[in-house]
Formats: sequence, C-alpha cells, structure tokens
Amino acid sequence: MATEDSGPGDPRLARLSLNTATTKNWTLAEAVDGAVRAGIPALGVWRDRVAEVGVRRAAAMIADAGLRVSSLCRGGFLTAAGAGGVDAALQDNRAAIREAAVLGARELVMVVGGLPDGDHDLAAARRRVAERIAELAPIAADHGVRLALEALHPMYCADRAVLSTLGQALDLAAPHPADTVGVVVDTFHVWWDPELERGIGRAGREGRIASYQVCDWMLPIAQDALLSRGMMGDGHIDFGAVGGWVRDAGYAGDVEVEIFNADIWAADGHAVLATLTRRYLEHVLPPLDRIAP
Amino acid sequence: MATEDSGPGDPRLARLSLNTATTKNWTLAEAVDGAVRAGIPALGVWRDRVAEVGVRRAAAMIADAGLRVSSLCRGGFLTAAGAGGVDAALQDNRAAIREAAVLGARELVMVVGGLPDGDHDLAAARRRVAERIAELAPIAADHGVRLALEALHPMYCADRAVLSTLGQALDLAAPHPADTVGVVVDTFHVWWDPELERGIGRAGREGRIASYQVCDWMLPIAQDALLSRGMMGDGHIDFGAVGGWVRDAGYAGDVEVEIFNADIWAADGHAVLATLTRRYLEHVLPPLDRIAP
Repeated sequence: MATEDSGPGDPRLARLSLNTATTKNWTLAEAVDGAVRAGIPALGVWRDRVAEVGVRRAAAMIADAGLRVSSLCRGGFLTAAGAGGVDAALQDNRAAIREAAVLGARELVMVVGGLPDGDHDLAAARRRVAERIAELAPIAADHGVRLALEALHPMYCADRAVLSTLGQALDLAAPHPADTVGVVVDTFHVWWDPELERGIGRAGREGRIASYQVCDWMLPIAQDALLSRGMMGDGHIDFGAVGGWVRDAGYAGDVEVEIFNADIWAADGHAVLATLTRRYLEHVLPPLDRIAP
Repeated sequence: MATEDSGPGDPRLARLSLNTATTKNWTLAEAVDGAVRAGIPALGVWRDRVAEVGVRRAAAMIADAGLRVSSLCRGGFLTAAGAGGVDAALQDNRAAIREAAVLGARELVMVVGGLPDGDHDLAAARRRVAERIAELAPIAADHGVRLALEALHPMYCADRAVLSTLGQALDLAAPHPADTVGVVVDTFHVWWDPELERGIGRAGREGRIASYQVCDWMLPIAQDALLSRGMMGDGHIDFGAVGGWVRDAGYAGDVEVEIFNADIWAADGHAVLATLTRRYLEHVLPPLDRIAP
C-alpha cells in the first residue's frame, strides 16, 4: 500500500531498499510483493528468507518482480577460538558468499561476532576477526561479492560484534581492496560517534561505503536490546547531519531501512511500508539529495 | 564485615574507594562505617548523601573516620539550550565545586548531559558542553577542584551524556590545564573502545587521569539501562588489559567501585563490601600492581 505521497515508479524512491528484517513476519514472496506495491525498488535480504525458497528461486522471484538486491544479511560470527568453531564459521561464510553471488547481491553484510562464552580477551577476538576476513576476502573477490563490515553499537560488543566503530571497520578493511572489503554505515549503530564525520569522509575517499542503513535510536532501550531500533523520526538521530556526511562522501548507492522492533513487526506490513516511505522522504532523502555546499 | 582475606589496615586495599552509589540504600554514616569495617580507606561520595547531613558535617564525618574522599559525584548536565537551563546548570555546578572543596575532594566527576528533549543536534550539544566547561574551569581552579570529565557508554548518548569516548573527553579537556580538567576512566563505559589503550596512554601522558572507576559489563542489559553494571568478575570486561594500560599510564590514584545494580542494592551492604574487596583483590588490583614489562 503506497502512501498518498509516493508509490510505484516514484523516482524519489529510486535508492530506497526494504531490508526484510523490517517486515520480519513476511515471507520473501510477501516482502517482494509489498516492496513492489510501495514503489520500493530494492530489497536487503536476510538469509532465512532466502532459505525459505532456496537461493535460485529467491533470486528469480526478486528479479522477476523487477527488484534488485541491495545486500545479503548476513555473514560473520568469526570470533570463535576453537578449531571446530572456526571451520564452521568459515564454511558458513563461504556459503553466504555463494548465495550473495547467485542473488546478484554485491554486498554481503558482516556482523563479526562477540566474545566467545567466558572469554574476556577482546583484543584477541578482534585479531581473530582480522585473520578470518583475510581468509574470506579472496573467496568473496572470486565471486564478485564485497564483504561489508558492519560496526555494531558498542552495547553489542560482548555478544554480537567486537567491531564497534566505523573507524575500526575501516582499519579492518584497510589491508584489502576497496571492492572486496567495504563498510556499512548504519545510523543506529554509529550516530553517537564523535569521530563519525571523519569516518564517513574517510570511507568515502577510500571507496568503501558498501551500504547506508537507516533506522532511529529509541529510548528506553528495549528489554531485548536487539529490538531497540525505531522508525526514522521517532527517535534521537539527526538524519540531516549523518545523511549530509554520507552525501559529501560521494555515496550514491542504496539506502536500506532495517528496523528490528517488536511493535513494527506486529503491525500490518503494508502500513509499515507506507510509514517507512513517508519517513524516508521526510527525514532520510533530503540531506542525501541536497547539493553539497 | 571484612572478608577472611582482607580487612582494616590491609595495605592491599590502600587505593580502594567505595562509591556511595554501590551501597545506595546506606546513609552516609552507614557508608562511612561500612567502609571502615571493610578496610576501605576512601569514599566516592554522591551529592545526595552529602545533602543528607550538610556538606560541613559530611566532611567532618568522613575525616573523623580517617577516610579520604576520592571524588564527588557529580556535576554536569550542561547541554540545556535555553538561557534558564544554562543558568540553572552553571549555578548547580558552582555549588558542586564548592561542595567538593569543602569535602577535600580533588575530583568532581562530570556527567555532561544528553540531548535536550526533542533536540537532535548532537554536534551543537557537544559544543555547548565545551563552552560551559570553559566557564566552569576557572571556578574549579579557584577552589582547587578538578573537573573530571566522564565519558559515558554510547548507549547513554541521547539521555545522559553526549560525551561518549575517552578520546573525546581528552579533546574536551585539552584547552584547559591538566590540574583543572581531567578525565575519568570507567571500565563499564569504555571497555569496548578500540582506541582505549591509546586513549589511556594519552590521558597518562597529559596527566589527566582523575579517577579509575571499576565495575563490570553485564548482559542482558538491565531493563533500566542505568542499572546494568555488575560486580567485577561477573561480566565481560578484561580488567587485566584495562588495568595494565592504566598502570602503564602512570596512574597511582584511587580505584573507585561504583555499581548501579538493583540486586546489589537489595543485598546486605556489608556482604556487598566483602564481595567487593575480594573481587578487587582478585581482578582489579593485580594488573595495577604488576611491574610494567
């Protein structure tokens, strides 16, 4: 259901992508249909939605509907210390790279993983991530896929991602070609960072911005902290400032809306997309579109 | 109640300080008594505990018990945009500086405040903090008090402190003399920071480490995120790594245990101090004491 302000064919939505996590209760077919009806031309696809129908069928469904895939979510979880955990992680990431290639997803979002159970050695976990990115990068390159390193908010450092800032993501990417290892700029995760303007500028100069993901920072933090994300405009993030930096960095790619939020998941998906496109036009697009001063 | 391992006069506790927030349900008199019985020679005092009895009587109670004051908590909340809010904040901070001087507290911990209601301009809020620190610094200097800027975990950026990293705190302190504006290293707030080793080293070289505060990072994040702190050893923080950096930075001052945690508040205060001293000796003191390599 498109809003009264936008709909299929609206050129203002040309860069907008629906991440399937935002409409978690929709099947892939429903997400494809919802995006088409709302005029959203791209999907950020989670692997569980792909697994529902198989990767070749998923690729066909998305392409047949005229949509593109802005990213595959996600690879990563590279911090295991034991050999078994390492092998399993690398095998899973190789599978994710192959899936991304079949889907035509240039960007494979990487959530690198937290501290292993009972392990306090954060520096060592970060070193392991660097080593495993080095193992995966040539495989990604062979498949024409880029590993898009996602810094997660520091509140997830222990359990989800020891990669905590955009600057750290760029340092981790630095040994690799920019078309093989990039970085995600996700407003929810990085909005607070006093080094953000500098980091986005650096990411742009290095050609490493693989994805601009948007959602808002809500308070109070949800009881399940993973579900604390909100619709753009409902929280505290200055999309004008961050979007302006992303624009000035020369990023002209897709803008993915990825919201983990129990209330949004419980709502009607078409209504969510109507709000989402309206808020995108109101808060997210204007700074991206504005001519740099 | 001392542990079997430590107690009054134990030289291993010489740097340990009980922050009164850890035993929130104790009056100042009870905290003084508890610290003395546990062999803890210093208190980090919150202003609400001081207000209970008045600042001169509080100073006398603490001194008469042979304790010292490692810090006064807290000043700050400097981000208001309107004139009324600014004046109120500056007045309150001047009062806090005077209280610190009377208590003999060299360090006044500053929690700078979050975004004003409905305000999204993070950069402007951060500039206001810098301007108000500049107004307060000479007053603090006149009183022999140091403003100890505390970076809070980025999950509090919107509502508690737009000061989010140690590096940012050092940049904010930089225009001022090191004996007038310092920084707090609080493990809970900074443990995740990939720039932490560098930041602590810089803080040491600049002579700005005003306080080393310890508690642990617990998961899941508590429903009231402020109460998510835990007893050292119960969570994910590598006190060996952080303590080693603090030692190598030349910090030889007090080590304050400040834990906001509903379970700890509900427990018997003397039992909490017994656990606290034991965990301090087990996790926190060894890296601080070790001879640098």
